[in-house]
Amino acid sequence: MADTSELRGVFPYLVSPVDSDGRVMRGVLADLVEHLIDAGVHGLTPLGSTGEFAYLSTAQRLEIVEVVVQAARGRVPVIAGVAATTIRDGGAMAREVMARGADGVLAILEAYFPLPDSGVEAYFRAVAEATDGPVVLYTNPQFQRADLSLPVIRRLSTVPNIRYIKDASTNTGRLLSIINETEGRMGVFAASAHIPACVMMLGGVGWMAGPGCIVPRQSVKLYELCRNGKWEAAMALQRELWAVNQAFARYSLAACIKGALELQGFPVGAPLPPQAPLDEAGREEIRQLLKRMDLL
Amino acid sequence: MADTSELRGVFPYLVSPVDSDGRVMRGVLADLVEHLIDAGVHGLTPLGSTGEFAYLSTAQRLEIVEVVVQAARGRVPVIAGVAATTIRDGGAMAREVMARGADGVLAILEAYFPLPDSGVEAYFRAVAEATDGPVVLYTNPQFQRADLSLPVIRRLSTVPNIRYIKDASTNTGRLLSIINETEGRMGVFAASAHIPACVMMLGGVGWMAGPGCIVPRQSVKLYELCRNGKWEAAMALQRELWAVNQAFARYSLAACIKGALELQGFPVGAPLPPQAPLDEAGREEIRQLLKRMDLL
Amino acid sequence: MADTSELRGVFPYLVSPVDSDGRVMRGVLADLVEHLIDAGVHGLTPLGSTGEFAYLSTAQRLEIVEVVVQAARGRVPVIAGVAATTIRDGGAMAREVMARGADGVLAILEAYFPLPDSGVEAYFRAVAEATDGPVVLYTNPQFQRADLSLPVIRRLSTVPNIRYIKDASTNTGRLLSIINETEGRMGVFAASAHIPACVMMLGGVGWMAGPGCIVPRQSVKLYELCRNGKWEAAMALQRELWAVNQAFARYSLAACIKGALELQGFPVGAPLPPQAPLDEAGREEIRQLLKRMDLL
Amino acid sequence: MADTSELRGVFPYLVSPVDSDGRVMRGVLADLVEHLIDAGVHGLTPLGSTGEFAYLSTAQRLEIVEVVVQAARGRVPVIAGVAATTIRDGGAMAREVMARGADGVLAILEAYFPLPDSGVEAYFRAVAEATDGPVVLYTNPQFQRADLSLPVIRRLSTVPNIRYIKDASTNTGRLLSIINETEGRMGVFAASAHIPACVMMLGGVGWMAGPGCIVPRQSVKLYELCRNGKWEAAMALQRELWAVNQAFARYSLAACIKGALELQGFPVGAPLPPQAPLDEAGREEIRQLLKRMDLL
Repeated sequence: MADTSELRGVFPYLVSPVDSDGRVMRGVLADLVEHLIDAGVHGLTPLGSTGEFAYLSTAQRLEIVEVVVQAARGRVPVIAGVAATTIRDGGAMAREVMARGADGVLAILEAYFPLPDSGVEAYFRAVAEATDGPVVLYTNPQFQRADLSLPVIRRLSTVPNIRYIKDASTNTGRLLSIINETEGRMGVFAASAHIPACVMMLGGVGWMAGPGCIVPRQSVKLYELCRNGKWEAAMALQRELWAVNQAFARYSLAACIKGALELQGFPVGAPLPPQAPLDEAGREEIRQLLKRMDLL
Repeated sequence: MADTSELRGVFPYLVSPVDSDGRVMRGVLADLVEHLIDAGVHGLTPLGSTGEFAYLSTAQRLEIVEVVVQAARGRVPVIAGVAATTIRDGGAMAREVMARGADGVLAILEAYFPLPDSGVEAYFRAVAEATDGPVVLYTNPQFQRADLSLPVIRRLSTVPNIRYIKDASTNTGRLLSIINETEGRMGVFAASAHIPACVMMLGGVGWMAGPGCIVPRQSVKLYELCRNGKWEAAMALQRELWAVNQAFARYSLAACIKGALELQGFPVGAPLPPQAPLDEAGREEIRQLLKRMDLL
Repeated sequence: MADTSELRGVFPYLVSPVDSDGRVMRGVLADLVEHLIDAGVHGLTPLGSTGEFAYLSTAQRLEIVEVVVQAARGRVPVIAGVAATTIRDGGAMAREVMARGADGVLAILEAYFPLPDSGVEAYFRAVAEATDGPVVLYTNPQFQRADLSLPVIRRLSTVPNIRYIKDASTNTGRLLSIINETEGRMGVFAASAHIPACVMMLGGVGWMAGPGCIVPRQSVKLYELCRNGKWEAAMALQRELWAVNQAFARYSLAACIKGALELQGFPVGAPLPPQAPLDEAGREEIRQLLKRMDLL
Repeated sequence: MADTSELRGVFPYLVSPVDSDGRVMRGVLADLVEHLIDAGVHGLTPLGSTGEFAYLSTAQRLEIVEVVVQAARGRVPVIAGVAATTIRDGGAMAREVMARGADGVLAILEAYFPLPDSGVEAYFRAVAEATDGPVVLYTNPQFQRADLSLPVIRRLSTVPNIRYIKDASTNTGRLLSIINETEGRMGVFAASAHIPACVMMLGGVGWMAGPGCIVPRQSVKLYELCRNGKWEAAMALQRELWAVNQAFARYSLAACIKGALELQGFPVGAPLPPQAPLDEAGREEIRQLLKRMDLL
């Protein structure tokens, strides 16, 4: 088990390499894990949005966690995505990923119908109870039908192992509101839609994001510059890295990260159908971008 | 097997009675089926939105189909909801429900990421290929992240067994556009959000809706009035039934239909947590409404 | 003054012909009025959405009302759009259009900031107090930032001269809810986004819509069929007219109606910049459609 | 005329004090201007959202500009809001405010119908042509129906006097994208919804915001800390000021700023009806907040 006394730094969202027969491609996933740890990332997050969790069966999800845990060998914490619609399934899934060696969970609520705050809160409490490691709350008003309100976040911040939140909205001001409201009880991770250097300056602890798979070394360098208060140098690197984000935002998330990894020599395959892989123009744009940044 | 040469009429969306340990409550579900067939409904639709499909495991879904098919005994067609995010799962689930005796499928696309039209089309074609009975397309811009555009509907209408569409938007004009665009190849079912008598006048073939569980006899009567062109009488009954819809729209869908069925003597239980059951005020409002309409 | 004891039937939304120097083109507007009355329309509505009210100065708005009133010569009621953001301006504008001979007003609330129900209600009450003719409430969740809730509509329906509502949402079910809630105190007009024959069957009193400028005779015929309960014949004509709506919905509203009128020989000019006129392809599509329907 | 060679710093959005008869309350507006200049603000912006421009007649708007210009006496630049729906009105209004002594304009497009990019671009070019001072583009996806896309912003950045942009979305990442896209040709002002210290770190030039009326000295201090790269001290002050923003965000914008100014001794009156003033609870919450921060 990795040290989870304090989660911080760059946690790439891992893609989920699955072949056309639905088999997890264990080898390339393990290779990617090795490559990222070698680049200095501080943790790994399988089964986030980039990991296409919504497109995977329970068995596929658990196999992916297993592969990542085995490949990581305790060198960095593995915080596995746990997404469900019912309290029963959320709790069960959290127990399953922990049983497979995950160090903590990224808790995602997949609501089909709108939910009252009390239901949202109950779900996350149940996931936390089923987990003996740290829990990172996930909030994304764009993809989730039920979202975490500030009062619910404040209440959940008093649950001992709910220690972090990853906010995937585009509203950076909300992060500072969360920091203000939870008075130090909740570490805030940025997402791709936020500018990491800004979030670090606000008091954030790091970021969980798909592009971290493609630019791990630069991400780690940016993190270190921020940690050391070298804001001018951080901003210079940040502007360059934001250009990657801008390019990626033009394409579908999993298609884009998987496509870029293929170009970098990791045959992770296409996103799961009916999602479409990058088209030729998209692949060419990403190729040019990666070249320009010495990432190929 | 029921006769599926022509689907038409009132298809109640069945609730999914599941106890707190996750067990399907087979007895009450079978009783409800018997009650609805006795009331004259023309078909049954398990695993629609009202059926909380998003809250059920694959095993629970298949058991529910099995119970409904066994209880229906071929007297009316059972059109089972098939909802998935991947093409593989959509096809597999369609084969599974047909293997359990369903007469056709209501095909639902659960997209997590936005999809291009080609992906949406590929999904529904794959579900249709996996099914030897009729397919009803489901489109609901409110709950689905990928929706069926008119051009996709037109193209899908040429697939032989894609013969129906159920539109769950609130935009009735869209139904007439679909009828115009598909030139008779697609039978249109209304949803709770549309006024059934209007849709029948536009050329619709019936409706699939949760409230049909609560007001089956009146629904069947309304259908017959429309079929016989008795529009004034139909409208008088329709206005009364719309008041039920208005009341139900104030509450969460599954909570409301399950709550009303409990009041009518079917102990179907609560919606799956973290959804909340009707509160006391809601239960009282529904009770008064049902009393006023002689439905208790 | 026209008879306003009962508003009902087809009220075309008039376009606002304004030249590039901002001058109202009085001649063509008067010609259009004559043409529509000759075709049998039951009323006229200048300064609705189709009339680009938001793009006109107060002076231009009042001149347009003046021209329409003079051209109509009391043969049909003129219900002028009154749109404002403040209570002061709403009341003042209502007095102004009535002083210029309008027979009643279509009351529109242009909110910039969200408003509580009490503010929405106060606005419409003030407009009604400033008007001695009938008031038609306008509600359009797509274009207005503050919308009329059902409770506000119910309360406003008890104001003596607030006798009608025109709902420009796409949600036809809402019309039946309004009819149910206001218990006969409020006549409901449909909009372009609703299917007029459906709304008539629900108990509506007519429709206010831009396409009425292009298809006035057919609209009047449809109205008469509905009034006489000839629903089968009405639906046959309705399906044909809906194709016009479908085509028009592909283009920007004012551009489309103005473009079609130009093709029909009314040189009403382009929509006000920065709106764009129909492009060549759009003009050709509309031309073909009008030809096919013998409207050229 | 003030020096407009470089706009930067804190530009409070001024409220518009108008009495119940529609008269501009010149005295209190001039007092507020004096107070803000005394506090060190770098510029003044009448007729922004906080200034309720949408609720004012042209005559009221021009009188407000006149009062502000006279009271400022060239000590700081006055950048007046120019909001219109047509190109004609946008250009005319820009000429009018410049004729009354404004030093530049904040250009706002009030679209009623959706517009193509070409129309959006044409509007802002026309406003810039009518202005001989600097133009600040205003973009707010929440309140404006037509928004400035990145390609339009890039093209407009090559117009010589379009030198600034104020982005009122909540998406801070978009600001860095704008900075990246316009390659130094466009100075970026933050809005209330962005965290000023973050925007300054990204390379922003200052902020235009309503709360600047209430906390002018602290805002100026925050600006100076950011300019001098004292990010730790800046963030400490920023967290405190963000609490003001959080409180204000719970209330309607004009009601809140006007209410707080009343508490601070500026009798600016209520927002224009049908907007509602702060209720007693809101006033009390704002009073406590201001007290806690020594702002009363």
